[in-house]
This record gives sequence, structure tokens and C-alpha cells, in this order.
Amino acid sequence: MDHLLYGVAYYDEYMPYNRLDEDMQMMKEAGINTIRIAESTWSSEEPEEGRFDFTHVERVLRAAEKHGLHVIVGTPTYAVPPWLAKLHPEVLAITKDGPGIYGARQIMDITSPAYLFYAERVIRKLMEVVQQYSCVIGFQLDNETKHYDTAGPSVQNRFVRYLRDKFGTTQTMNRAFGLNYWSNRVDSWENFPDVRGTINGSLAAEFEKFQRMLVTEFLQWQADIVEEYRREDQFVTQNFDFDWKGHSYGVQPRVDHWEASRCLTIAGVDIYHPSQSHLTGKEIAFGGDMVRSLMNGNYLLLETEAQGFPQWLPYPGQLRLQAFSHLASGADSVMYWHWHSLHNACETYWKGLLSHDFLPNETYLEAKTIGADFRRLSPRLVHLQKEAKVAILVSNEALTAMKYFPLPEGISYNDVVRWLYDALYEMNVECDFLYPQSEDFDKYQMILVPALYAAPEELLERLDQYVENGGHLVATFKTGFCNEMVKVYHDRQPHLLWECLGVSYSQFTVPEDTYLSGDTFPLSREERALSCWMELAIPAGARVLAWYEHPAWGKYAAVTEHVYGKGMATYIASMTTPQALKAILRRALEHADLWDVEQQVSFPVIFRQGINQAGEKIVYCLHYSGEERQQTWLHEDGVELLSGKAVHQGEQLTLKPWDVKIVAIPAK
Amino acid sequence: MDHLLYGVAYYDEYMPYNRLDEDMQMMKEAGINTIRIAESTWSSEEPEEGRFDFTHVERVLRAAEKHGLHVIVGTPTYAVPPWLAKLHPEVLAITKDGPGIYGARQIMDITSPAYLFYAERVIRKLMEVVQQYSCVIGFQLDNETKHYDTAGPSVQNRFVRYLRDKFGTTQTMNRAFGLNYWSNRVDSWENFPDVRGTINGSLAAEFEKFQRMLVTEFLQWQADIVEEYRREDQFVTQNFDFDWKGHSYGVQPRVDHWEASRCLTIAGVDIYHPSQSHLTGKEIAFGGDMVRSLMNGNYLLLETEAQGFPQWLPYPGQLRLQAFSHLASGADSVMYWHWHSLHNACETYWKGLLSHDFLPNETYLEAKTIGADFRRLSPRLVHLQKEAKVAILVSNEALTAMKYFPLPEGISYNDVVRWLYDALYEMNVECDFLYPQSEDFDKYQMILVPALYAAPEELLERLDQYVENGGHLVATFKTGFCNEMVKVYHDRQPHLLWECLGVSYSQFTVPEDTYLSGDTFPLSREERALSCWMELAIPAGARVLAWYEHPAWGKYAAVTEHVYGKGMATYIASMTTPQALKAILRRALEHADLWDVEQQVSFPVIFRQGINQAGEKIVYCLHYSGEERQQTWLHEDGVELLSGKAVHQGEQLTLKPWDVKIVAIPAK
Amino acid sequence: MDHLLYGVAYYDEYMPYNRLDEDMQMMKEAGINTIRIAESTWSSEEPEEGRFDFTHVERVLRAAEKHGLHVIVGTPTYAVPPWLAKLHPEVLAITKDGPGIYGARQIMDITSPAYLFYAERVIRKLMEVVQQYSCVIGFQLDNETKHYDTAGPSVQNRFVRYLRDKFGTTQTMNRAFGLNYWSNRVDSWENFPDVRGTINGSLAAEFEKFQRMLVTEFLQWQADIVEEYRREDQFVTQNFDFDWKGHSYGVQPRVDHWEASRCLTIAGVDIYHPSQSHLTGKEIAFGGDMVRSLMNGNYLLLETEAQGFPQWLPYPGQLRLQAFSHLASGADSVMYWHWHSLHNACETYWKGLLSHDFLPNETYLEAKTIGADFRRLSPRLVHLQKEAKVAILVSNEALTAMKYFPLPEGISYNDVVRWLYDALYEMNVECDFLYPQSEDFDKYQMILVPALYAAPEELLERLDQYVENGGHLVATFKTGFCNEMVKVYHDRQPHLLWECLGVSYSQFTVPEDTYLSGDTFPLSREERALSCWMELAIPAGARVLAWYEHPAWGKYAAVTEHVYGKGMATYIASMTTPQALKAILRRALEHADLWDVEQQVSFPVIFRQGINQAGEKIVYCLHYSGEERQQTWLHEDGVELLSGKAVHQGEQLTLKPWDVKIVAIPAK
Repeated sequence: MDHLLYGVAYYDEYMPYNRLDEDMQMMKEAGINTIRIAESTWSSEEPEEGRFDFTHVERVLRAAEKHGLHVIVGTPTYAVPPWLAKLHPEVLAITKDGPGIYGARQIMDITSPAYLFYAERVIRKLMEVVQQYSCVIGFQLDNETKHYDTAGPSVQNRFVRYLRDKFGTTQTMNRAFGLNYWSNRVDSWENFPDVRGTINGSLAAEFEKFQRMLVTEFLQWQADIVEEYRREDQFVTQNFDFDWKGHSYGVQPRVDHWEASRCLTIAGVDIYHPSQSHLTGKEIAFGGDMVRSLMNGNYLLLETEAQGFPQWLPYPGQLRLQAFSHLASGADSVMYWHWHSLHNACETYWKGLLSHDFLPNETYLEAKTIGADFRRLSPRLVHLQKEAKVAILVSNEALTAMKYFPLPEGISYNDVVRWLYDALYEMNVECDFLYPQSEDFDKYQMILVPALYAAPEELLERLDQYVENGGHLVATFKTGFCNEMVKVYHDRQPHLLWECLGVSYSQFTVPEDTYLSGDTFPLSREERALSCWMELAIPAGARVLAWYEHPAWGKYAAVTEHVYGKGMATYIASMTTPQALKAILRRALEHADLWDVEQQVSFPVIFRQGINQAGEKIVYCLHYSGEERQQTWLHEDGVELLSGKAVHQGEQLTLKPWDVKIVAIPAK
Repeated sequence: MDHLLYGVAYYDEYMPYNRLDEDMQMMKEAGINTIRIAESTWSSEEPEEGRFDFTHVERVLRAAEKHGLHVIVGTPTYAVPPWLAKLHPEVLAITKDGPGIYGARQIMDITSPAYLFYAERVIRKLMEVVQQYSCVIGFQLDNETKHYDTAGPSVQNRFVRYLRDKFGTTQTMNRAFGLNYWSNRVDSWENFPDVRGTINGSLAAEFEKFQRMLVTEFLQWQADIVEEYRREDQFVTQNFDFDWKGHSYGVQPRVDHWEASRCLTIAGVDIYHPSQSHLTGKEIAFGGDMVRSLMNGNYLLLETEAQGFPQWLPYPGQLRLQAFSHLASGADSVMYWHWHSLHNACETYWKGLLSHDFLPNETYLEAKTIGADFRRLSPRLVHLQKEAKVAILVSNEALTAMKYFPLPEGISYNDVVRWLYDALYEMNVECDFLYPQSEDFDKYQMILVPALYAAPEELLERLDQYVENGGHLVATFKTGFCNEMVKVYHDRQPHLLWECLGVSYSQFTVPEDTYLSGDTFPLSREERALSCWMELAIPAGARVLAWYEHPAWGKYAAVTEHVYGKGMATYIASMTTPQALKAILRRALEHADLWDVEQQVSFPVIFRQGINQAGEKIVYCLHYSGEERQQTWLHEDGVELLSGKAVHQGEQLTLKPWDVKIVAIPAK
Repeated sequence: MDHLLYGVAYYDEYMPYNRLDEDMQMMKEAGINTIRIAESTWSSEEPEEGRFDFTHVERVLRAAEKHGLHVIVGTPTYAVPPWLAKLHPEVLAITKDGPGIYGARQIMDITSPAYLFYAERVIRKLMEVVQQYSCVIGFQLDNETKHYDTAGPSVQNRFVRYLRDKFGTTQTMNRAFGLNYWSNRVDSWENFPDVRGTINGSLAAEFEKFQRMLVTEFLQWQADIVEEYRREDQFVTQNFDFDWKGHSYGVQPRVDHWEASRCLTIAGVDIYHPSQSHLTGKEIAFGGDMVRSLMNGNYLLLETEAQGFPQWLPYPGQLRLQAFSHLASGADSVMYWHWHSLHNACETYWKGLLSHDFLPNETYLEAKTIGADFRRLSPRLVHLQKEAKVAILVSNEALTAMKYFPLPEGISYNDVVRWLYDALYEMNVECDFLYPQSEDFDKYQMILVPALYAAPEELLERLDQYVENGGHLVATFKTGFCNEMVKVYHDRQPHLLWECLGVSYSQFTVPEDTYLSGDTFPLSREERALSCWMELAIPAGARVLAWYEHPAWGKYAAVTEHVYGKGMATYIASMTTPQALKAILRRALEHADLWDVEQQVSFPVIFRQGINQAGEKIVYCLHYSGEERQQTWLHEDGVELLSGKAVHQGEQLTLKPWDVKIVAIPAK
């Protein structure tokens, strides 16, 4: 697509009465140019086994063609019809909680042959129906696919086969996972016990990795089917989602996004975030940066909230701020879940752009202004190319390992990731994400490594090499502790990296009344407080930036930096406050020559930028606050696109509550 | 009965040694004239299948006749004997948690033919035994009957039949419940999925309604059996109980009290309430008002606490205050659970009038004074006729719907009901309860409607008509949102009522730092705080009494009033503090000409009144406080019945801690 | 053994590489003279059904002989191999939660014939292998054995047989348990319902007692097998553990330690306790006093933490303080769990003496000083004979009964035990524990009885007799309330003891704004606050030390004392603050002539003492504080053994943070 998509999910199937033309008319008035359909409507498309009925789909496609709307068609497979569960109960996943009971979505065994058989048939029938419509611009495979904790006998049987292929002998496996402990040793494959009961974190984590592989395999299988039908100009995407904490939060534990995205032509994502006084833009930026990094390019925002949950109803201006924030991360679309608000079932209070009454409301009226701006500015805003100098390395393996060996105080892997990410965000440092599979470490001036708890030596060696080559590494506690089988490395910690970091430890504890020492950082005592974890680090070449302030632990280092090869490595051995973290990062950024004009300003004024197709630098200035403020324009001269007015360096700009400015700076 | 009953539950079956005559002697000394027996003693009455043994029952009946005590006989069916569960495991209800395990009471499938067969047999045997005793004044069917979440295959089979009868076709049902959502659509009855797994709130709520119908059917079935035996002078009752929050709290979700009471000759109830410094009389009044409204007349208080839980042990004076409070609501009996304290099993700490030692204790000694007063004053206190001018409309459908679509902050339907009821209570405004089946709306000057979230159009129309005819309606947020199938009405909210209320909305959110605005009500800022829910109401004819005080929502109305037809309608679009609610209600009451002498006084001095058989006005003055106070007597002249002294208007009365006064005012 | 054992658990089976000689060398350097092996390594010893492999065991034994280390061999039965669960799924216990799933340790049905068959075989094979090694000094039966809530059909079948033997007829049982309640009456053994569902606390408690008997039986069975092999100089022990609250806390509910220890030659125990700023020594003393009292003599500390959980990493000095604290309780060994830190599985963060890197660390270095001191001082410190004048009577029956009839506010039986114990500890009053089976009540000057909720009359009579004979009894609320079947005694409370105590009650409640009255004790109002429970006690001869300060309950007694026979009885009818409890106990101790030199000093300076083999009095002075302090030496002159310096009465000693002094005072 060569323009911005502004869209909604639309389900004729759920309408209390026929509103198709009226709805599309209202969409057009709001500048909405795309709808997303069909996902999870299997029971409407195949109400009884073998009886297909695409009335709703075709009605909508015909209307879309008439009204000039684009359509993204989703395969309907992420919720199964009642008849299928009745006919083949084995399509319901057996999990740790036992066999499933029909009702909710996403409760299938995605490896069940019965499920795959019927899913393939309905996908093919749907593709045959939709392939004739020119309005269809692309396909979404399933939706928010995960493995749904499937762990029934046949899945476990495949898992044992996978282990056999991986290890060859049970002896090798026993040693790799340490199964001797508490008599868990397995000496014949046929005696492999039900993995759901294991208390061995290595084995449990390996099983979760295997489950994530099932997701990759399932999406590839769907992609192959769709591939047989799609036109070259049609894209294939998936709607990835994130670890959930009442809103999109962190790395998805049940999917390896990197692997799963290999079968797509463009990555898609949904991002839901707190709103009202809790709107910060962090989740919009985080989710966008993550998904953009998957395929190193623009992505589709397939779902986000319009009104959303009752507590998310946007204040005036927030819907606009959110929409442009997505573009600022590299999205080529903004699409709402969904058009109207549902009158039945469990998403009745996940409100759409329209309320249950279908009347124009304040949120819809604000959307109209977005639609108009998108249409007008699309050529300059679409396909934003972003180039970050900083990257954060994340890992499904580390996340899962830390589920089985959790930090104290309820701190998860994703909390550590967000602790770092959010600090960068507030400092206006844009970043990409790296995965263990990423190849281009060297293109970044700085790599941050949050709690890389489980990592193969090969990955640790690449990090070491990265610093040696001149990169700046910022690593935190828990990095390099275990190998990829979650076996603790039995030598100096952090394994393999301690020379690079210039620091090592063999003991650790939980901070209580413990603080960062010293005057290195200008912080109050409260800001120097530590929590969750502390390694008793002993310098081995590194310069100590802060020691522990504590009667017993005062001789150990808390934060260090080390010149190594052509680069430098910073180590943070304990969890600090956000203020302390930002002080540490500032020092590192300055050293890496990354302290620039954007860093003169900080949250709630956020800068995000990229290069548009015309080579202009597009700078988004996003104001995440309900209070008006004056902001000096520190960038070069340019044109503010929404107002059309010129902006000069040094000029005072007035930022209204939840304001957004978009400045185009000519290519030099 | 033509006199007050003062009684206890008595179980010879549970006694550690033979105390029958001694116990009855102690009862007589305390003025106790009634015992309640036999309920839940099935395993004693039929220790083995087909072997009946009514030794205990007959012993007690003979002794009661000798001592001149009345007896209420309960059918023993609410706890099944071990042999029945062994012989027919299917008598145990299958619920969401799977098959049951024998042990607790109230775990039966009340539709199981095996259960019904054996239950009928033991009821008939019992009736044959007891019908010859003149001391038996009435029967209690089962006890606190509910559906026990029964949801096994045969119950679900009946449910599908019920749906088929109701909807005719699956298409109609799919539309009514919105089953298309997430592929839940059912296209053939035989593929109807296990309802326990549904994520469709409409279907789930319909199933709960169906389960409540099973209770009505079961009680009618028992009533029909008992009817074959009972003398004309014997009553038939049931011991209804309430939603439980550590004590009796609100509308019972598992029984439709209105429907279930159709088979009775008099309604019965149990009421348990906090005590000591937490004794307010609210539950006594609430439960009494609810059960009195079922059959529009006096009722039996079949159970309440004597000593109760350890934390409920009454302070001196409280047992008296409680007893007269029950009469003030229209009870014709006060009966304790139970005579002694149990020496085994799970109610060991649900203490009776006597402790485990059977010796007279302080509570028993206070009961003696109550017994004496009851006997002496019975002619003037029995059969109190109450006539409220205000009513609260409650609905099982609304309650259940809000279970599936809950308010934020853990606020339940019953919390909203109690928020209104408790405000009225503290203002000394007495009320009845209306149910959707009630016919006589017009007899009330004011009807309050808490969160009538699910309601058929017919009911909403009656409320509209009520105002049109001159009534005063006070409705709260969430009223009229869905139909009786929990499908959100797809036009302006509140559906059908918005013209009457003169206000409408299509958006809503959760208040955060939001307050009632303005000077209409004399309230501190803290008292104007809002919580839980707020609808962004737009006046459509109504006068706005308070707007929202909030940066984003200031243009929406929070509280309105609207003259409509001959009446007036007040709308409360958000949850206020009790203080604010009372200010709003005061305004409405004054407008409805309901601000009278009782409202000059407020909690902890409570007035409750009625007309006795002699036509006297009986005014109860109940003092719910541990601190002595002076209270001017504002009513007409009368005689204080407990002391026998005259009371004159304007006279200062001294209210001792937890005091009660009962003033008879001659008919004019 | 004639010397102190200093040891570690050692598992060659879990090592990531061969370190045997290096490890033993490091042990020797640290003064470690004992290792504990083989426990829970069944799957290594018998990797497949019938294929035995004791390579690891023999390797270690050979090396131990070479390095001169003692070895304690544990039977491997507390974790079953996967093949056994696959071959005989019935070895997994069926519990309230249903059938088990393989994975964790301690999930067996210890009565399963299949389990017993295979367990016996592997034990015998192991014994045959190890009996030839002279380094083996003793055997540990299983580990932390419990009944694992086993409650499957065959266990229940045995339970019914046990009931039949105990009661003869169902009628007797029905009466004993009060099964008539809610129709639970059983009239034929074959209809006995699944006990897992019972709501009858008497029956449930009896089943738990039966389950504890299974543990006793199981250990006896293992002891009998081991007995066939062991040399006379080899001991047999078990590793008992305690009720767990994140650390060792109280009486073990799932084992009757008294009965279970009958089959041993020496008692063993593990004690885990909070550390760092939360180290108080209470658990070390409590656990030691409990296990020492079982067999009235020295015991083996088989496991305690070295580094332990991350939050337990000891401050400098703490490991020493802990080690000597164990000796001060009468331990003849200090052994760590375990040597190194595990690299896989769920105890990866239960850290050993070494970290995962096997390098000497600060904790190991401190252990070296302990090892050296142990070796040097062993002759004077081993076999410490302790003689307490005070005892606390604890009871599994009371504990279990209070599980089913819990106190409010989450207070458990063990909380009451610890409330008393910890007060004594802080006052430097050493004590033994008595069990209902103990015979020598009269040897103590004072017996404290915490909440003896369920007790046979015989035990209550012995307590009465104890006071009559001149003892001082301190009993708390809830004592003597029920018989051993958890049936409430139906006469005056405390049953049978009220004459001895000179006080009785029949009502009780929960204190709210209630305080101890009066000036008897020098306490602030805050210190006089009451919580959890209060009995409305009426003096019947006793002197009231404190009344309740409360508007309604002021006439009842809270604390009393009563001269009875030649003795005195103190009753505490409510739960006081620790300060108030200590004031009450001080009065009782003074009266009993137990206020001595140790009581001049209190926590954090702790004195513990005994007589060594040479007849010297050994006084441990344990300083549980991170702050240095001066302490006057009040005992007689002696020699401080660690420093070798003389100490004189009246001398000022400097106690460093977490310091320990051991003074030997010559026999007079």
C-alpha cells in the first residue's frame, strides 16, 4: 500500500440490525479507508459441519467495493464452532488444568489433526470466496495465535520425539537438564513422565520453547495455504500481541515473534494501553519498536483501542495523540477494535469507535479529524524509515527461564525489560529490539541487555565481541547466569562476560535498606534505593561507579564501567530506581556520544523521528500531559505539518494538553 | 397464630445427653413458646435405606405437648444421608467444579429422580408421624433451598429443552444471545455445548434464571406433598435467606424469592447480622422489608443469631433491641439458631442461646426479659400492618447480568441496592420492595430503581408510565441498559426511560479524581467524591442538579431531575458517597412530599412503625448506639409499652445504650 | 560418635563434572568431617526397573575413606523414579486434589504395596553395598517423611477398619463425632463416605491422626529393614522437620514426632530460619528444644542453611553464631544443605556452602573458622547435657483440631505456641517440650500449656495433679475445650481444669478495642491491647491479675492466678502483646522461684547452657544483633573457650555484632 491505512474491525455478523450502508457512510465521513473482517467468525461461515455460508463476508466485500474501502480478511480459525468441539472433543487443548471445556476462544490444540483438517477446509472455502474481490488488500492469518498451553498426550509424544532428536540419548538429556535431582532421571524414552508435573525448570522451559515452535509451525502452515490464493499485491500478516498486564506490556512468552514472523510479508500487531491520566505513550512506542524490529521495517497496527475499556475512554485530544504516536513508531496503519460496541458476549465493555447506540459521539468526532489529517498528510507520513543507534536485546529463553526461577518481589523478566525501555523512552532515546537470532549487532552504538538469564555461549561471545569491536554494552544483573538449557554456568559469573564487564560475583542477595553509594550520580538517598536483587560484585578491572551502602555489603560494587577492547561495558548489579537508572544511562550515552538535542528534553515531551519517502526528516513532538506548556524548538527549521506553519530553531512552541506537532525538516 | 412466637431451633438428635425436659423447662422460663425441629435430620430419621426411625421427632413432640410449646416441623431434605450418596451418586450435583463429593449439606442435584424419590418417601413418612400432634402449628419446606449450581448433563438437557420451547429455533436464540460472537453460534440443538464453559453472559444469565426456576419447581413439589397432610390451621413456609457477605446482605442470586414464595401460606426468613459495635439494624430492616414484600404481609423470622459467631456475642441490651427491631419490620416471630451450642461439626462456633455448658448465661438471661415482654405485649404487637410510601425495585435478572458484566472496584448489584437502602434507612424512610412481577407500582409515592441493568421493555414502560401518572422515580446509573436477555439496547441510553428522565448518554467511564460539582447540595469536597462508575449524561430536558467536576468531563451531568407528566424523575449517573446520596434523596423526598416528622431524626435513632390490630399506631424507637442520648419525642402523644408510661409530644426521652421504646398512639 | 560432626550434604550425582577429590580436599580444609549422601537418588541407583547402579555411592564412599570423612547414608525413598510412576501409577498419592501427577518429590502413597515393594528392594540393595564401608557412621531413614495427604480408596479402606476397631459400632462413632449433624450419620461401615468431603471436624481430625500413624508405621518398617544390616556402632536417624512459614516454625502437623522417633537411635532434624537483619536465633533454639525433647538427649542437626535463599545470605559472623547456637541447644552436629549450589532443578536458589562456581567464598571462609573451632573444642562442647526447669506442652491433636476450628485473625495453634516460646526465649528462660505421651511432668517447676484445645480427660487430670503436687501451670485460652475426638466438653470451661485454675467461662468473643486493665503490670496502653480471642472468664477462687478494659466486658477476668494444692496456676484468657505476656510470665516465674541471673539480661543477648562431659557448666552467650554492646558478666568465673581468656563475674564483655562467647565454668 502506498498510503496510510485508517481502519476499524467490522463484523456484519454481530450487528443487531442491517446497518451496512449507513456504517460505511459514517466510516467514509471519518476518513476511514480500511476494514478488517472475518477473523473468528467460523461458526457463521460454517454453521454446521460442511455447510458453508459466506453471506456476511460477501455482503461486506460488495459494500466495501461500492464504498471504496480496503478490506483485510482474517482467517476465522482462532475460535472453533460448537459443532466441531462436539464432533471432535480432541480439538480442545489439554493443559495443566486438564481437558478443556468448550466456550472461550483460543482453547484449541493447534496440532490436532481434526482441528487442522476443518481449519484448512474453511480457510480454503473462504479464500475461494474472497479472491475475486479487488478491495481485499491482504490477509491476516488467524489472530493473536498462541499455543494455548496445549500439552495433551499427542503433543507430549511429539515433544519426546523432539527431545530424542535433540539429545540422542536420555543420558545426554539427563545431564543437560540435571534430571538426577530428586530422582527425575529418565533412562528410557518410553518412561518419559507427564511433563506437566515436572519440577525441573530446565525441562519445563524446554517444553515451553517447543510449544512456541508449534505456533511458528501453525502459522507457516496457514501461510502456505493462503499463499496458494493470494495475489502478488496482497500482503500476509499476523496480529501479534504482547505479554499482558491489564494492557500490552512486554515480550510475548507464548510466541517466538521472531521465528513466527518469518512466514509473513508484513508484521502486524495490536497495542492496548492505559489512557486518561495514565496515558504515557510508552506502550505505543514499546510495541511499535518491537514489531518494527521483527522484519526491520514498517508494520501494520491492526488493533488498538478507540473508547476501549470504560476506564480508557480518551480525554479530548488523546485519540489524536495516540494515532500519530503509532505513525511515529513506523506504523503504516491505525485500526480500531472495533467499529461499534458489542451488544452481547464478553467484550461488551471493550468499546469501539461507536457506542452501542451507533450515534456519533465525541470519540468518533475526534476520529474524523484524524482521518482527514491522515488523508491529507499520507504522502509525507507513510513508510517512515527509522534508524536507531541503540538497541535492547530480548530473549524468550531468558523470559521463560525467569518464570521458573523468578526474581523476588514479583519482578518479572518483562519488568526488567520495561525498566530499561521506559528509562530510554523518557530520555527520548529511540531504540530497536534485538533478538538472539538478530545478526547485526554492530550497527548499533549501544546495546542494552536486560537480565539475559539464559543464553548460549555463542550469544555471550557475540556480546563480548561487540564491545571488543567498539560497541557500548549496558548489561544488568542476572545476565549470562545459565545456558540455553537453564543450567547455571559453573564458573565465574557473569559467565564468559566477566572479563568484558571487568567484574565478577559468586554471591548475591536481596537488598534491604541498601542504597547506591557515593557521589558519582547526583541523586537523593531515596533515589539511590535498591530493590529486588543485588549481586555482590567484585571489580576485576572495571571502574566502580557506585558501591553498596550497607553495613555488611559495602565492599561490593553495584554499578561499574569497563573499557574493553575498543568499546565499553557498563554493568548494573542491582535494581535501581528509574531516576538512578537514567543517571547511569546518561553517563553511558554520553560516553557513547549519544547525548543529542532530543536528550535536552524529556518526558512528558517525547520526540520520535524518521525519514520519509521524500528524504525529509519527520520529527514528531508528542505531548503526554494534560497541562499546557511552552517548549523551545531545538531541532532545525522545518514545517509543522498539521498547521502548515514554519517552525524555526529556538522558537517557543505552545504545547496544549495531549498535543501533537509534526515537523518536516528538509533533507540536507 | 394470633400471638407472637418466640422460639428456638431444637435438635434432640444433637444432644450429648438427654436434656429434653430440662431444656423445655428452661425455655418456658424464658418465655419461649415455639421450637423448630427435624430440618436436615434425614440420616437420623432414615439411618439406612428404607429403615425409618422417628424416635427423636416423637420424643420432642410428646414433650412439647406436655410443656405447651408450639412446634414447626421442617422436612429433612436439605442434607442427604451417606447411604443415599453411596447408593445413588447421581444425587450429588455436578457443577462447574465437576462432580461433587459427599459431606456438606446443600450439594444435591434437586432435579435428580433418585433424590426426589427418596426425599418424597421420607417426607411422607415424617408427615404421617407428625400429623397426629396438635402442637404442630406449621411446616417448613426444606431449608434455605437453592439450586446448588446444579449443572450436570440431565439438567443441561432440560435447559436445552427450555431454550427450544422459548426460542423455537436456534437462529432466534443465536440472535437473542449474540452467539455469533467468537464462533459460539449453535445451529442444531444436539450440538449445544456444555453451558458451564460459555463466555456469553446472555446465555450464562439465562441458565442461572433456569436454575432459579428449578428451585421454584422443587419447593412447589414439596408444598404439594405437604398439602396432602396438613391441617387447615397449619401454615407452610420456607426459610429464605439472602446474598451473604459474612452476614445477610442482599437479593438472593440463586432463588427467585417472588416466584418461590407462591407455594407458601406465609413467608419465612433468616437474618444474620453484624453485632457489637457494628450493630446498626440495617440487615434486620432490610431482610424484613424484603420478605414482608414477598407476600405483602407479616412473616416469620425463623432464624437469627442469639450468641452467634464469637465476634457477634451481643452487648447487654442488644438482644432486646434486635428482637423488637424484627417486630418493627412486621415479623410475627423471633426464633434463634439455636437453643444450645453444638458440640461437634462445623457449626460449633455458631453459638446458640445457651453455650456448650447448657447453663444460664447473660444472653439467656436477657432473652428471658424479651420472652416476658413478648407474652405481655403480644396482643398489641402481633400482626403489625405496615404501609410504606416508598419502594425499591429489585431484580434477579439485573443482579445476575451484573455478575457477568460487573462494575469496577468490586461493586456488585447488591452494593448498589444497599447503597440506596441504607441511605433511606438512615433517614428513617421506610420502604417496601418491588419485584418485576409486582403489580402495584402506583400505590407508592416514590420508587427507587438501583442499577436495573437488565430489564424487559415492558418493565421500563411501566416505570415511565408510573412517572407520567404522578410518581417520583429515582433511578441510578446502569438502569435500562440491557434487555432481559442481557443484550444491550442499541439506541439511546437509558433505553426507553431517557425521555422520562430527561437525560441520555452514550459514553461512560470510571471516575478518577472526579466530584459532584456545584452548590446545589451542602456537601464537603470529600463528600462530593464519586466512585465506581460515571455516565457522561447529556441533559435532554432535565434540570441538572450536579455536573462532574473534572478537567475532561465537566460538560456532562451527574445528577438530574425532570418533571415528566404528573410526576418527577431523578437520575443519578454515578456512584456518590452516602452523604451525597442522602442529600439527593432528601431533595427528592421533599419534592414528593415525603419529608415528615421521622426525617427530623436520623440514625442511630431509628423509627419504624405500623398499625396494630386495634388500629393503634405503634412507633418503635430503636437506638443503635452504645452512647446514651436525649431525644425529643416528635410524634403524637402515646403510651410507651415497655414501661407503661405516657409519652407526650415534645418530651425529652432518655435513650440508653442499645435502647428500645415502643409507643402506642391511639387511632384518631 | 564421641566428637562434634561438622558436615554437608554431598551429591556426586548432581555434579556438572568430576570434583570428588577437589571437593573433599576443600572440605578437609574447612574442618568438615562428615557428609550425608544418597537420600532421594533412587533414579540414579536404579535407573530402570531392576537395574541397579551404585557407582556414585561407592565412588563417594571410597573417597570418604581415603579422606577420612564420616558418611551418613540416607535411604533414597522420598522421591520415586519416573519408571516406577509409569509402571505403577498407584504409587502416587490420591489426595483431596485427586490423583497426583509425577514430578515433585514426596507425592507417594506411603502405604502402596507397589511403592513398598520397590522401596524395600532398593533399600536392601543399597545396604548391601554400603555395609562394607567403615566410614559409614549411621543411616537416615528416608527424609522429612510425611503422609503427603494420602487419602485414596485403599487408605480410606484401612481408615474404616481402624474406626471399626476403635469404636466397635457405627453408633458409638456417630456419637463420638456428632455425625448426626447435617445428616452425616453412618449406620453401616460399607456406606462410609469419602472422608475427603467431610465437614465434620472430629472425623477430619481423626483421619489426620490416622495419617500420622501411617508415617510412624512407615518409618518403623524402614528401621526394621535397616536394622538387619547396621553395625552396632552405627546410628539410625530421621530428618524431622517443622511446620513451615517460609522457614521452620512450629509443631509438624503431618507427623507425630514423638511416636515416629520411637524407632530411632538418635533424633535428627533440619532447621531453616530467617537471616540477615531478621536473625534472632528463635528457630534454632525452638527446633533444637523440640527435637532434643523427643528422645531426651543430644540430637543431630542434619540440615541447615549455609547461604540458603538469596535473602538469607549470612552477614559476616552470622554463620558462626548460628553454628554455636545449634550446639547450645544440644546438637552434636551442624550440617549444611548442601555442599555446593545446584545448577538445575527447583533448588537452584537454595544455595549451599559453595556457590555455583565452586570457588571459596566469604561464607566458606567463615565456615573454615567454625570447623577449626569445632575440632579444637569438640571434647568440651560435644554431648552437652541440658536440664530445663520449664516445659511447654504441645499436642498434635490440639493443632489439628484448631485447623478445623481456627482462631480468628489467621492465628494458628503454632502461633500460640510460638507466642509463648518466643517470650521465654527473649527472657532467657530455657525449656523442654512435653508431649501428651510424656511421663515426667513433675520434674519441671513450671509447665506452660498453649491452647490445648483438644485433650483427653486423662491429660487434663494429670495437669490438675501436677499443680496439686506443687507445680506451676500457665495455661492459655482454648485449653481443655474439647476431648480428643474434638467434641466440646459440655460442662464448665476449661473442662476439668477450672477448679485448678480457679476460673471458668461459658461465653467468649473477639476483642475489639479491648485492653488488659489495671495496674498489676507496668505496661503502656498499647502494650495492654488484646487480639484474636477473649474468654469472658469469671473468677472461681482465682485472684484476678487483669480485667478486660471494655464498656461491655469489664466485669470479666483476662488474667488470673490461683493457689491450688501445693502449686499455682496462671490463666491467660486472651491473646496479649508479647510485652504483656512477658510481664505475666515474669510474675509466674518469680513465684516459681525461677527468676535467676540469666533473666537479668534479655534478647538480643541470649544465654543457653548445659553441662559437658567433664561436668563443667558451659554457658553460651549469643549476641543476636548487628550493633556492638557492652555486657556485664553475671555468671560465675570461667574461661571463654574461643579466646581462651578467663572471664570474671562482674567483668564488662564487649559483644561484637553477631558475636558468640562460650564460657566454661568449672564444676563446683
